[in-house]
Amino acid sequence: MRIRNIKQRMAALQQFHEYILQDVQPFKGSWREKFNCENLYVELGTGKGNFLTELASRNPDTLYVGVEKFAAVLASAARKAKERNLPNVKFIHMDVLDLLSCFAESEVQGIYLNFVDPWPKSKHEKRRLTHPNFLQLYQSVLQKDGFVQLKTDNESLFEYSLNEFADAGCRLRGITLNLHQSKWEADNVWTEYETKYAGLGMKIYRCQAFFSRS
Amino acid sequence: MRIRNIKQRMAALQQFHEYILQDVQPFKGSWREKFNCENLYVELGTGKGNFLTELASRNPDTLYVGVEKFAAVLASAARKAKERNLPNVKFIHMDVLDLLSCFAESEVQGIYLNFVDPWPKSKHEKRRLTHPNFLQLYQSVLQKDGFVQLKTDNESLFEYSLNEFADAGCRLRGITLNLHQSKWEADNVWTEYETKYAGLGMKIYRCQAFFSRS
Repeated sequence: MRIRNIKQRMAALQQFHEYILQDVQPFKGSWREKFNCENLYVELGTGKGNFLTELASRNPDTLYVGVEKFAAVLASAARKAKERNLPNVKFIHMDVLDLLSCFAESEVQGIYLNFVDPWPKSKHEKRRLTHPNFLQLYQSVLQKDGFVQLKTDNESLFEYSLNEFADAGCRLRGITLNLHQSKWEADNVWTEYETKYAGLGMKIYRCQAFFSRS
Repeated sequence: MRIRNIKQRMAALQQFHEYILQDVQPFKGSWREKFNCENLYVELGTGKGNFLTELASRNPDTLYVGVEKFAAVLASAARKAKERNLPNVKFIHMDVLDLLSCFAESEVQGIYLNFVDPWPKSKHEKRRLTHPNFLQLYQSVLQKDGFVQLKTDNESLFEYSLNEFADAGCRLRGITLNLHQSKWEADNVWTEYETKYAGLGMKIYRCQAFFSRS
């Protein structure tokens, strides 16, 4: 049963090979040239791809790459991109830890973290995608004044992340403790998670952290 | 009736003349020398003085100056300082706008803003004590790497302030969205306001904004 599931998933990824890239090594350092786009933004933990496909649809000159380690949701994201016939959105089936194998130094304009796992236990702190180890990874691939944008409904993760961003020397911008009621909502692109829980009065935190290269 | 009240208040301030300083001009630039203290911290809107007298009691080598424009509460603050016989806490009956008349450039190590008026209407934005105009005042009197510490239960004021601090180029530290449940609670000195409302499940926001002199 387990093997059949894995086989099915791999078949699904193959089915969307135009969107879920298998060998990304050749793109490293030349994503924008290869896909004829002016900018490159990356979403980590892209899930079912609502956010990224909507952004790609709004900004056809920008390339959006979604990174996701779970094959099942990635197939769903790719299906969305195919249905909307979006040439400027691509996905990579990969762990965030392997980020440097895909993107060259200063290649990325912005990184999106949407409703990532909060890993609430302190013994799991290193797994949080805003842990200093990850911020160091992001800084490597981000261009000067590139940003990480975090959106979460988890108060503790938000508090942790604000402090880690600040400690890493980031300049914080667009901090909101209630995104849907804020002036930033006008430009907010909803994820699946937001669509599902917004009606329940879920409060969403958001900020942007700009990295200046040392 | 009104005149009698004002007279009474002025008499109260006179009564505590050791604590509520009348002419502070001579202290400007030499607060630490005059009061034989190593450091100088200022609380703006000091209210009934719980916070400042408690800090002064814990740190006898540090001078604490409370600024308050309402005479009635200031008399209450001075009474506390007198009862605890604290030589290192002083008060000034003054509007925050007059800060530069009392403190010289780089004279202050830190400024505390505790539960200041949130002025929620946007037409009153300039009255918020974290408006850029006030931040500029604070930067003038703060030493290099001096800080402003904000504590509030008002989500909108906190959000506004975080963004204004960041826009002013401050380095943010010790950000918490729930102070009483955070690791920073161990060092937290409660104000009257906290004591009154903590039992009602009031959530308290806090941060420190460090200014680097330009």
